[in-house]
Amino acid sequence: MKKILILGAGLSTTSLIDYLLENSEKHEWKITVGDCVLETAQKKVGNHKNGRAIEFNVKDEKQRRAEVTKADLVVSMLPASMHPIVARCCLSLKKHMVTASYVSPEIKAYHKEAKEKGIILLNEVGVDPGIDHMSTMQVIDKIIAKGGKMTSFRSYTGGLVAPKYDNNPWSYKFTWNPRNVVLAGQGVAQLIVNGKYKYIPYNQLFKRTVRANILNVGEFEGYANRDSLKYRKIYGLDNIPTMIRGTLRRPGFCKSWDIFVQLGMTDDTYTLENSENMTYRDFINTYLRYEENVFVEDKLCEYLEMNPDSYSIYLLRWLGVFSEKEIGLKNATPAQILQKLLEEKWALDKDDKDMIVMQHQFGYRLNGEDKIIKSSMVYEGKDSVNTAMSLTVGLPTAIAVKLILTGKITSPGVHIPVAKEIYEPILEELKGLGMEFIEE
Amino acid sequence: MKKILILGAGLSTTSLIDYLLENSEKHEWKITVGDCVLETAQKKVGNHKNGRAIEFNVKDEKQRRAEVTKADLVVSMLPASMHPIVARCCLSLKKHMVTASYVSPEIKAYHKEAKEKGIILLNEVGVDPGIDHMSTMQVIDKIIAKGGKMTSFRSYTGGLVAPKYDNNPWSYKFTWNPRNVVLAGQGVAQLIVNGKYKYIPYNQLFKRTVRANILNVGEFEGYANRDSLKYRKIYGLDNIPTMIRGTLRRPGFCKSWDIFVQLGMTDDTYTLENSENMTYRDFINTYLRYEENVFVEDKLCEYLEMNPDSYSIYLLRWLGVFSEKEIGLKNATPAQILQKLLEEKWALDKDDKDMIVMQHQFGYRLNGEDKIIKSSMVYEGKDSVNTAMSLTVGLPTAIAVKLILTGKITSPGVHIPVAKEIYEPILEELKGLGMEFIEE
Repeated sequence: MKKILILGAGLSTTSLIDYLLENSEKHEWKITVGDCVLETAQKKVGNHKNGRAIEFNVKDEKQRRAEVTKADLVVSMLPASMHPIVARCCLSLKKHMVTASYVSPEIKAYHKEAKEKGIILLNEVGVDPGIDHMSTMQVIDKIIAKGGKMTSFRSYTGGLVAPKYDNNPWSYKFTWNPRNVVLAGQGVAQLIVNGKYKYIPYNQLFKRTVRANILNVGEFEGYANRDSLKYRKIYGLDNIPTMIRGTLRRPGFCKSWDIFVQLGMTDDTYTLENSENMTYRDFINTYLRYEENVFVEDKLCEYLEMNPDSYSIYLLRWLGVFSEKEIGLKNATPAQILQKLLEEKWALDKDDKDMIVMQHQFGYRLNGEDKIIKSSMVYEGKDSVNTAMSLTVGLPTAIAVKLILTGKITSPGVHIPVAKEIYEPILEELKGLGMEFIEE
Repeated sequence: MKKILILGAGLSTTSLIDYLLENSEKHEWKITVGDCVLETAQKKVGNHKNGRAIEFNVKDEKQRRAEVTKADLVVSMLPASMHPIVARCCLSLKKHMVTASYVSPEIKAYHKEAKEKGIILLNEVGVDPGIDHMSTMQVIDKIIAKGGKMTSFRSYTGGLVAPKYDNNPWSYKFTWNPRNVVLAGQGVAQLIVNGKYKYIPYNQLFKRTVRANILNVGEFEGYANRDSLKYRKIYGLDNIPTMIRGTLRRPGFCKSWDIFVQLGMTDDTYTLENSENMTYRDFINTYLRYEENVFVEDKLCEYLEMNPDSYSIYLLRWLGVFSEKEIGLKNATPAQILQKLLEEKWALDKDDKDMIVMQHQFGYRLNGEDKIIKSSMVYEGKDSVNTAMSLTVGLPTAIAVKLILTGKITSPGVHIPVAKEIYEPILEELKGLGMEFIEE
């Protein structure tokens, strides 16, 4: 009997736990799910005979060591900052570990030790990061095997509401952490185009979008992610002249979102005076000149040189940006207030389904000819618990666990899924689960 | 004989040291000037019989205690981060201390102890902060004494090249730390207008300027400083409905500077890839879309919707922003590169003089009538060493030292010069030195 310890039983663990429990009979697994709230773990485990739910506090060293000692493999679905503690424990007790999160510098530093001890610390096996790495490397490896030379790589991912449920004028609902959506893009985006480094500051980011058509779900616009440059190294494309990664929204979103950016309403670095007594109308008005007897709407249009009849102003009105409703938040940052407003309007309805869309565009030269491959995935959620977001995080993570325990993934060390040994079997199984990339 | 210890003999200490040496005979002072470079201290002291130059390392506890023990009063002109160390030492040895820098939270916390020990820790007695506080409080106290009620306060300060030497199209030369000029305004400006809090993000700051005419030196434009709100408390104007502090430039400057802000060229948070091989033309091009066979100038104009014949484009050309000159900086941030370019073009010539301009606008209600007082100062530097900037920092600091040692300033505790006891005699003497506020 192999023993799996899953730490954290939050939003994206349902499909992970379900998959492992379903496969536990066949592979003779015992699965322990630990969460700081016992009921949360119990709900996920149900009364499955191979499952066990425990209250777990990662900071309790005694419990941590006791539980990890009993396990063969640990999956950390805890907040990312906790992973190094778990990794340290796994290393010292010689246990494999899998996470869906970005590999941190601390964990990266464990590579040599893990290798020497024959331990696998596999990270970034969710969706983004995760499926993006795997599907990218599968095509790149194929191109290189044919004798091609990569000349450009563009990759865009979005988590959005599925088309059938897309019934608001922003064509956007929160399918993941709203705070991250409000703060997205702050800092500078770094990319390279035809050998020229390009930097896009936050105040220009949502103006500089590109268009993408994806399979049968229509048109999107993409804005650049913060650091596209580091992916050159990760994908072994150090000298590639063009490298861009970005985020997808529906057309029109970015132009309207940019109004918040231009006004300063996404700032999370200071709190507003007197926010508890403000209305949303007061909130936007704090970013406009003082002028008696002029409507807030008119001041805004004059300030940002917009037409009062523009679609963007309609979108703001639809959100309630100009409403006299009280915000009701004390000592709030602009970003927190904006988030509160959006959460009311961009919430998924009970029956709504979300979707993950991803498109990679590979430019390469083969036999003197320039070619392009587009590889795209559209994946819809099943319901409000088994969302596309949680399934695309949970399932590849679960499959990776299985592949390690069944001896299909064997290379020790700290890894992300860019090696064929890892991505090939995971992508193969994901295809059967409906997460398929279509090449064009 | 009273003994004065001056720590730091940098740029703004010449007039301070000269003033104290000149007055040393009459008041029987012995003055020690300590600097980490002995020659720097020696140069300032010359061979004055009451002066003594020493090599001084503030981090050497033994030397610090030894020198402070010998003194009656310590003037710290060290970098601001060193003041708390000096203050701690002065407190424990019961010595007065004077600085021209912003009072830090650490030093503020010493108020009670200083009061109990009968020690004066006087801060912010330079120009900004310093002369601004003093000249403001003088008028406010007068208005309140007349029975008036303050309704608005607007205050603008600028350090610029004096009109006679203003021979570049930006009407700007560096008269102080260039780095601070490049980074000025980053973050959010906070102010209040007619009871409405207003927040101006960096990307709008240089678009939202106001005009000011100052005495006989003509027209300026002002942009808002970061935190105007905190001055309500400092000036005892807690409930004032309008409070704005800002920085002055000549008309046209802000609009052109805003181009750098919009492009992201003032960012100091990341380094550019390959900056050592870049020209200035490459530098601006990294902030523009990739487009073959289109001139950088044309891309810029299209991007920011500017006319190629606009004055701003001329100003950029004049700076050399589009030149093929190599930058020659390794691992440089955008702000560092921009600073290098500007330092070449905005340097003061040997014979140039600088000027400090300051204007306060006080709105108040008296006997049912709304009134306004404008109080303005224009002060020109004497030469390239005795600049307006260094004289307006050094002289009020020196006068404060004299007033403490001669028993004219007596209230113990941590202070800034907002009390009549402090500002009145300092302003009176500054007037005689040509730093005079004219009321309109």
